[in-house]
Amino acid sequence: MTRFAIGVDLGGTNLKLGAIEEDGTLLEKIEISAETQGGPSVVVKKICRNISELNERWGQRYKLSGIGAGIAGIMKLDEGKVITAPNLPGWEGYPVRSKIEEGIGTSFKLENDGNVAALGEKWMGAGRNSQHLAFMTLGTGIGGGLILDGKIWHGISGMAAELGHITVYPDGNLCNCGNYGCLEAYASATAIVRGAKSLIKTEQASLNLKELFVSSQEIDAKNIYRLAKSGDSSSIELFSRMGTALGIAIAGLIHIFDIDTFVLGGGAIASWDVFKKSMFLEVGNRSFVQRADPRNIYKSELGSDAGIYGAACLSFQ
Amino acid sequence: MTRFAIGVDLGGTNLKLGAIEEDGTLLEKIEISAETQGGPSVVVKKICRNISELNERWGQRYKLSGIGAGIAGIMKLDEGKVITAPNLPGWEGYPVRSKIEEGIGTSFKLENDGNVAALGEKWMGAGRNSQHLAFMTLGTGIGGGLILDGKIWHGISGMAAELGHITVYPDGNLCNCGNYGCLEAYASATAIVRGAKSLIKTEQASLNLKELFVSSQEIDAKNIYRLAKSGDSSSIELFSRMGTALGIAIAGLIHIFDIDTFVLGGGAIASWDVFKKSMFLEVGNRSFVQRADPRNIYKSELGSDAGIYGAACLSFQ
Repeated sequence: MTRFAIGVDLGGTNLKLGAIEEDGTLLEKIEISAETQGGPSVVVKKICRNISELNERWGQRYKLSGIGAGIAGIMKLDEGKVITAPNLPGWEGYPVRSKIEEGIGTSFKLENDGNVAALGEKWMGAGRNSQHLAFMTLGTGIGGGLILDGKIWHGISGMAAELGHITVYPDGNLCNCGNYGCLEAYASATAIVRGAKSLIKTEQASLNLKELFVSSQEIDAKNIYRLAKSGDSSSIELFSRMGTALGIAIAGLIHIFDIDTFVLGGGAIASWDVFKKSMFLEVGNRSFVQRADPRNIYKSELGSDAGIYGAACLSFQ
Repeated sequence: MTRFAIGVDLGGTNLKLGAIEEDGTLLEKIEISAETQGGPSVVVKKICRNISELNERWGQRYKLSGIGAGIAGIMKLDEGKVITAPNLPGWEGYPVRSKIEEGIGTSFKLENDGNVAALGEKWMGAGRNSQHLAFMTLGTGIGGGLILDGKIWHGISGMAAELGHITVYPDGNLCNCGNYGCLEAYASATAIVRGAKSLIKTEQASLNLKELFVSSQEIDAKNIYRLAKSGDSSSIELFSRMGTALGIAIAGLIHIFDIDTFVLGGGAIASWDVFKKSMFLEVGNRSFVQRADPRNIYKSELGSDAGIYGAACLSFQ
């Protein structure tokens, strides 16, 4: 009987579940609003109900190998608890693993969302031909995951791969973490919007960018990306800075790890075609290793499905 | 019969060999000039002769577990060849492993010098209580070694742990590698001397530092360290910058790996008491992980013996 696994990906906005065969075939995907305002027990009920439904539908034809989840937060993995989760209100200290295990009546594998996305890309995405990869999600912030020798690298306290908090400009922009010049303060979607605001404030913005801020109520990185695509100089400059910051960080990672594959995902990856040139240029300029033996820097292939793939993969490892 | 191993450490200046028991007891240490000007075959003959002598003296009471070396250069480990070794003239492409194996008539383990020093500190030095550590040698340049899960992390091409070439100041000093703002350009012994020269050139140097350059023919980091200890403001400033640069890099490494132990060695570690304050301050300021759960940043305990310990340890693993 062919095996399948259920992978859960819980973010601040969406809850996704996938039933995935051992060979990577996606049997079914469920995507619903996470509705986190009700607190963790409401979300957990919803997760358990959907897991049960997937198992009922697919568990007759396939053998369930296991169930796992990636959750947007910092976890105490050995205890199955959430330490802190800025996008999941009320989850601090919540014993999510045991609560889900109570609800579904079987064991459950817990992970951080960046780690499972990295594992998903390693298993079935852009990193499938490599044993080692560094993954970054470029979104509101920058998360990450490290796969070394085919496995998630957790570090001593499950805090590894906080790749958004590598310092790239020591005297640079203040980051949410309290540090100055973090990668996240230059290469996240939030950083693009903040950069645009700063250009307008200091009267360095192009006319087009100024108009965007006058005409739109909600400015996000997508608006600015569209302007960049239309040739707007200020917007192109913002994405070029994003690429440069990514290049500085990736060159450092090459010298630290000597790994062959880097995968970038998250919402802001939509602007890949605008930032990639400065990114590749920067990595080459800064890394003699890259010049001698170029490393692969890829766009995520699984996109927002990387999490459910990785969460399912936890049960196949 | 208790086991022992022979560890060899070949640098540009010195050749060291150690006969070391399985419990870490140093039975005998040999330290001689490397005399690299004669080319690799002369050096290899000397290595083989000394290995044989150590084995004759200790091989009767102890069982020889193996022989290994750390060599100052970039190696193609699978082929046992040197790729490039700036401090060993004529060694490019030299099949050092097979040459030594011919000379001693038995198998031989080859490693990069930074890696064996890291392994030595993990085995019997400052990192002995940890399964993971990052090691940096602060010398003419900055080398490094990474121990993950108790083992040397090589990366895909044996180029891992080039920790001196992490960018800390993107618009900073030119490094020998061609990049701007590498850690090595701020925190090596060479960087301290270069920084002093630059202060003198730009007329920002203290009187004491100026006098040092007038009165001494050869200026090295040690002279400047002595000035710093005597309270000279310019010299203190140079070591403070060194500590800051190290702090930026170490904070990044904490966020990348989440490991618990960092060990700093090499000649410039003599100035530890002058640079450590700014280093610890910088790591704390930049890393929320460090603030929540402080990591160990230690001085090397084995000093210049780390290499022979690590090279011997290769045979006990």
